Amino acid sequence: MKKPLAEFIGTFTLVLLGCGSAVIAGDAIGFTGISFAFGLALIGMAYGIGAVSGCHINPAVSLGAVAAGRMTVGEAIPYIIAQIAGAIAASAVLYIIASGSADFAGGTGANGWGEGYLGEYNMTSAFVFEVVATFLFMVVILGATGKGAPAAMAGLAIGLTLVVIHLVGINVTGVSVNPARSIGPALFAGGSAIAQLWLFIVAPIIGAVAAGLLFKSGLLDADDA
Amino acid sequence: MKKPLAEFIGTFTLVLLGCGSAVIAGDAIGFTGISFAFGLALIGMAYGIGAVSGCHINPAVSLGAVAAGRMTVGEAIPYIIAQIAGAIAASAVLYIIASGSADFAGGTGANGWGEGYLGEYNMTSAFVFEVVATFLFMVVILGATGKGAPAAMAGLAIGLTLVVIHLVGINVTGVSVNPARSIGPALFAGGSAIAQLWLFIVAPIIGAVAAGLLFKSGLLDADDA
Amino acid sequence: MKKPLAEFIGTFTLVLLGCGSAVIAGDAIGFTGISFAFGLALIGMAYGIGAVSGCHINPAVSLGAVAAGRMTVGEAIPYIIAQIAGAIAASAVLYIIASGSADFAGGTGANGWGEGYLGEYNMTSAFVFEVVATFLFMVVILGATGKGAPAAMAGLAIGLTLVVIHLVGINVTGVSVNPARSIGPALFAGGSAIAQLWLFIVAPIIGAVAAGLLFKSGLLDADDA
Amino acid sequence: MKKPLAEFIGTFTLVLLGCGSAVIAGDAIGFTGISFAFGLALIGMAYGIGAVSGCHINPAVSLGAVAAGRMTVGEAIPYIIAQIAGAIAASAVLYIIASGSADFAGGTGANGWGEGYLGEYNMTSAFVFEVVATFLFMVVILGATGKGAPAAMAGLAIGLTLVVIHLVGINVTGVSVNPARSIGPALFAGGSAIAQLWLFIVAPIIGAVAAGLLFKSGLLDADDA
Repeated sequence: MKKPLAEFIGTFTLVLLGCGSAVIAGDAIGFTGISFAFGLALIGMAYGIGAVSGCHINPAVSLGAVAAGRMTVGEAIPYIIAQIAGAIAASAVLYIIASGSADFAGGTGANGWGEGYLGEYNMTSAFVFEVVATFLFMVVILGATGKGAPAAMAGLAIGLTLVVIHLVGINVTGVSVNPARSIGPALFAGGSAIAQLWLFIVAPIIGAVAAGLLFKSGLLDADDA
Repeated sequence: MKKPLAEFIGTFTLVLLGCGSAVIAGDAIGFTGISFAFGLALIGMAYGIGAVSGCHINPAVSLGAVAAGRMTVGEAIPYIIAQIAGAIAASAVLYIIASGSADFAGGTGANGWGEGYLGEYNMTSAFVFEVVATFLFMVVILGATGKGAPAAMAGLAIGLTLVVIHLVGINVTGVSVNPARSIGPALFAGGSAIAQLWLFIVAPIIGAVAAGLLFKSGLLDADDA
Repeated sequence: MKKPLAEFIGTFTLVLLGCGSAVIAGDAIGFTGISFAFGLALIGMAYGIGAVSGCHINPAVSLGAVAAGRMTVGEAIPYIIAQIAGAIAASAVLYIIASGSADFAGGTGANGWGEGYLGEYNMTSAFVFEVVATFLFMVVILGATGKGAPAAMAGLAIGLTLVVIHLVGINVTGVSVNPARSIGPALFAGGSAIAQLWLFIVAPIIGAVAAGLLFKSGLLDADDA
Repeated sequence: MKKPLAEFIGTFTLVLLGCGSAVIAGDAIGFTGISFAFGLALIGMAYGIGAVSGCHINPAVSLGAVAAGRMTVGEAIPYIIAQIAGAIAASAVLYIIASGSADFAGGTGANGWGEGYLGEYNMTSAFVFEVVATFLFMVVILGATGKGAPAAMAGLAIGLTLVVIHLVGINVTGVSVNPARSIGPALFAGGSAIAQLWLFIVAPIIGAVAAGLLFKSGLLDADDA
């Protein structure tokens, strides 16, 4: 039960602080502040719970780890359940905090695309961005935690990568690269956030699994470079 | 006397630079700049005095360490006295510096909530935010300094977590998660800052002690994950 | 094939996320956000692929490494080909994503100078900036990966140096210090970006090779300091 | 000659990129961007030349190291000469780059206080800020490079401390904490920058030497904490 508990707390933190920065302080901190919020929340948890569960806090990452041969499907299932539960709990706590202001406009930090959503990018842009960004994110995760890389730095490098992915992509999709991070807010947002949720489940998983298979192939192994 | 001296200097730095960034430069650097000021001040001190005292510079953290079984109450008392003294001294020095400008409006960086305070969040939001944020902060502190985590990275991870907590919460309470950080400015601000001070003592302690007990329970131990 | 593949992915990431931050989100995140995007993308890749290829992801850096005696010309050639290919591929993917918004103005993140380009600096400023900035960048790269420096920190230090170089120089040239990063966007921008491309090939190489020769001379060796 | 050369390059970098960010890009990146520019330039050099000279790149730091007993006066003199020379050279190169824009208003990044200078703080505020900030900066430097602290992290912690010092103090004095960083620009700015230069020599040295003596006293030693 230790690993799922760690994943629950970690995903809870990522969603509460990442989405919370957008909902509570987005007007004040802008995309730059929101980007750092997501990435720094991940860094905190990478060192806070990393020794327990590896700090995936992202179902796509757990499935990418399966594809890379670093985890079994049986091990991944309780991770994914805990991640989704943590994200939903975080969205509930965020609602409690955010609704305590008269200015609260009902924001949840949900992902999306198209008319009325941030930069109004079309579905193709959204899909391509989420696949490619999650692929590159997973390359950093697998490489930074792999042979030859300084293990102590992995959490920092991975979190800073999440910052830059947000700097680029908030305007496109709000940035998921993480199905759990999309599911939690969508349940509270309803409407198009639910209708568009499939993309934020499918695209990140495609990207992460592709990176996992690339590492599985040995083409990015450090040992015989 | 070394440990209390280190805690005095550390808390002095956190309050002078953290609250100072808000009072002296808040209009220019915004919530994002203020958030980094608090977190980076903590990082500097984590490496500057960490080897002497562990750099708690926060009474809630010292009490959380007691709850986790990493410190006795007798050891915590001189820490807490030094932390509060450092915060008060910092507020005094900040007043001297800040009042040297004709634009000085009397700001102290005090925490608060409700009508007239930043996002005007209600007391429930303030209380929930401070409990939850301090809980998560303490999870990072205890995890990053615990078994299996790379000890050298702890100060960085903890400080960056304080950045993201501020990115989210400045709008709600100005962010305390640290009774000493609230007491210093409140003494100089007076009025509602004193009247509301109880929350910034009670809520952070609840959050930190809860995290301490969770670690004490062994449920987040890395050794048998 | 592992090293060129790693360099391809790394340069792809740097250009997609660095230039992408300017094209997709530049109005929202400003020069500060764009600067962090370039530097943090480099940090991510330094740990993600550094163990495979050393993460040059920059032809000037590979040539500087040759000048410093750390790499042969024969080793550098496949690196440089892969870097340029990665940058071109990234510009193509960026076009696909960015053009999916009705607001897309055709931006590519191309470098430049003179009338109509950002701060409208003249060619002398552009040339001096690119030579000096690449020289200093290469000093950090060679020093941080050399004798006596903590190897695990190199990627972080190098990436943060790229952030500060961008903070200073975006207004001058958009900041290249990397011929591949300039070639990719220029092919899609055409016009003056092609006409001015020579500077972003010549100046970074001069700066990086000069730093390489300085290290080759032993004047900055740590072993007999 | 290796150590002075390294100190020359390091101080050159700090002044060119730190002051350059203010002169070339200050309107775009604000105090937050300028603060990161100074701190990240220091981080780059800490790892780029730290193994050669220790990367003081600041006469106050070298004198603080003398006070702490970590360096002799005879060793400090060539350091200080190289630091001042590097700062002057950087101001010259910055002038060449910055003057290539029609918008160039003659800025140098010089420090100052009083009427017409940023927040128009009085001399007392300026003096107190510079003494206290340099003292705290030197505590981080001596602590982070001392017994019990993880040596690899020192450059990062010190640079991030310089960021937060700038976040707070740009409005007060533009932030010196470094006589060389003040001397270079002042020579090009002339006028009040020269008239006020004494404070940016005296105050940082007082602060750094005070911290050096504190460490010399053993009161902040980690070995018997």
